[in-house]
Amino acid sequence: MSQSSRKQAIPTATVPRLSQYLRKLQEVQSRGTTTISSRLMADEVGTNPAQIRKDLSYFGEFGIRGVGYDVDRLITELKKCLGLNRSWNVIIIGSGKLGTALALYRGFQKQGFNLIGMFDADAKVIGKDRGAGPVLPITGLEKFLSENKVHIAVVTTPSAAAQEVIDRVVAAGVPSVLNFAPIRAASDQPVILRQVDLSTELMTLSFYLDK
Amino acid sequence: MSQSSRKQAIPTATVPRLSQYLRKLQEVQSRGTTTISSRLMADEVGTNPAQIRKDLSYFGEFGIRGVGYDVDRLITELKKCLGLNRSWNVIIIGSGKLGTALALYRGFQKQGFNLIGMFDADAKVIGKDRGAGPVLPITGLEKFLSENKVHIAVVTTPSAAAQEVIDRVVAAGVPSVLNFAPIRAASDQPVILRQVDLSTELMTLSFYLDK
Repeated sequence: MSQSSRKQAIPTATVPRLSQYLRKLQEVQSRGTTTISSRLMADEVGTNPAQIRKDLSYFGEFGIRGVGYDVDRLITELKKCLGLNRSWNVIIIGSGKLGTALALYRGFQKQGFNLIGMFDADAKVIGKDRGAGPVLPITGLEKFLSENKVHIAVVTTPSAAAQEVIDRVVAAGVPSVLNFAPIRAASDQPVILRQVDLSTELMTLSFYLDK
Repeated sequence: MSQSSRKQAIPTATVPRLSQYLRKLQEVQSRGTTTISSRLMADEVGTNPAQIRKDLSYFGEFGIRGVGYDVDRLITELKKCLGLNRSWNVIIIGSGKLGTALALYRGFQKQGFNLIGMFDADAKVIGKDRGAGPVLPITGLEKFLSENKVHIAVVTTPSAAAQEVIDRVVAAGVPSVLNFAPIRAASDQPVILRQVDLSTELMTLSFYLDK
């Protein structure tokens, strides 16, 4: 199967699990382990062995019955599938606490996400280092995007500013947006738009707490 | 159907959508709108009308053909279902950038989540206000939990500290944990444990970008 037809076969719900498997395998690899069973993988990521085998079946037959998966080979395949065998340029818009927390999050760089700029509308923070070099003025966004290839824009602005910022990055050709502002962002342009909603997580806990 | 048997009927994947619907309806309500069609709801949250009708069917027959849903009534039912018609006590463990960003996030208080304490292991930050009153020393965690009913512990510590902190809150009887540390936390005790992984979101974008 070619890389792109294989990717088309992978269900949407499987993708976030693949990234969990990858992180777990990298951890296991760093401890010097070379093979891992689906049972152990399942315990480590909190699922069941059947789910692991199903999800990993998209990558061909790497598992050997009674031995397990070849850790190095599976990492290579997962990285290729997740597009992590190359690097992506990322900007963060909004240099508040959340933006800064994300800029300082070491997991990103490790997986090939290069943070190449951080923007804010507040004149008081321009030029300060919030984990991604000097904060740039949002007025210079379009110029920056015309001079630098940006693959992912992470939006951590206040709600009121988020949709306009998203419209601007999309209009400038940024192909994907990760939005943390508590609005349901939309775009009439073709863009990959993902939403992280912190209160959704708390509400989901609340649902299960309330019995 | 009783409240608890209705809740048992709601699939796991539906729950996060219910919180999206609630937020959208509250927005619509604040603009003075009293009814909303499934089509409009679908456009607003980025899904299709059939999904909306299916998800809301767990709440009985609130939709009137050709008119839509009664906004006030649906908000009341969704809040009841999500356990948001009462308040929950929340603590944050870890007063770094992410912990502070969460403490300052206004969406929580609005939905009935009371932030009643923030803890850290670093002596330098104890007593400082990071959005949730003076930061308390982690050494006092068990005493605090014995004196205050805490429903949700949000963990934003470094990876190395997260599992131990989770074990401690669970041992002290906290029924649910929202973990932001990039580890796959586990517990052998009955606890509602949810994981927010920021690099998973970026990897998912990468998957779709890489074509």
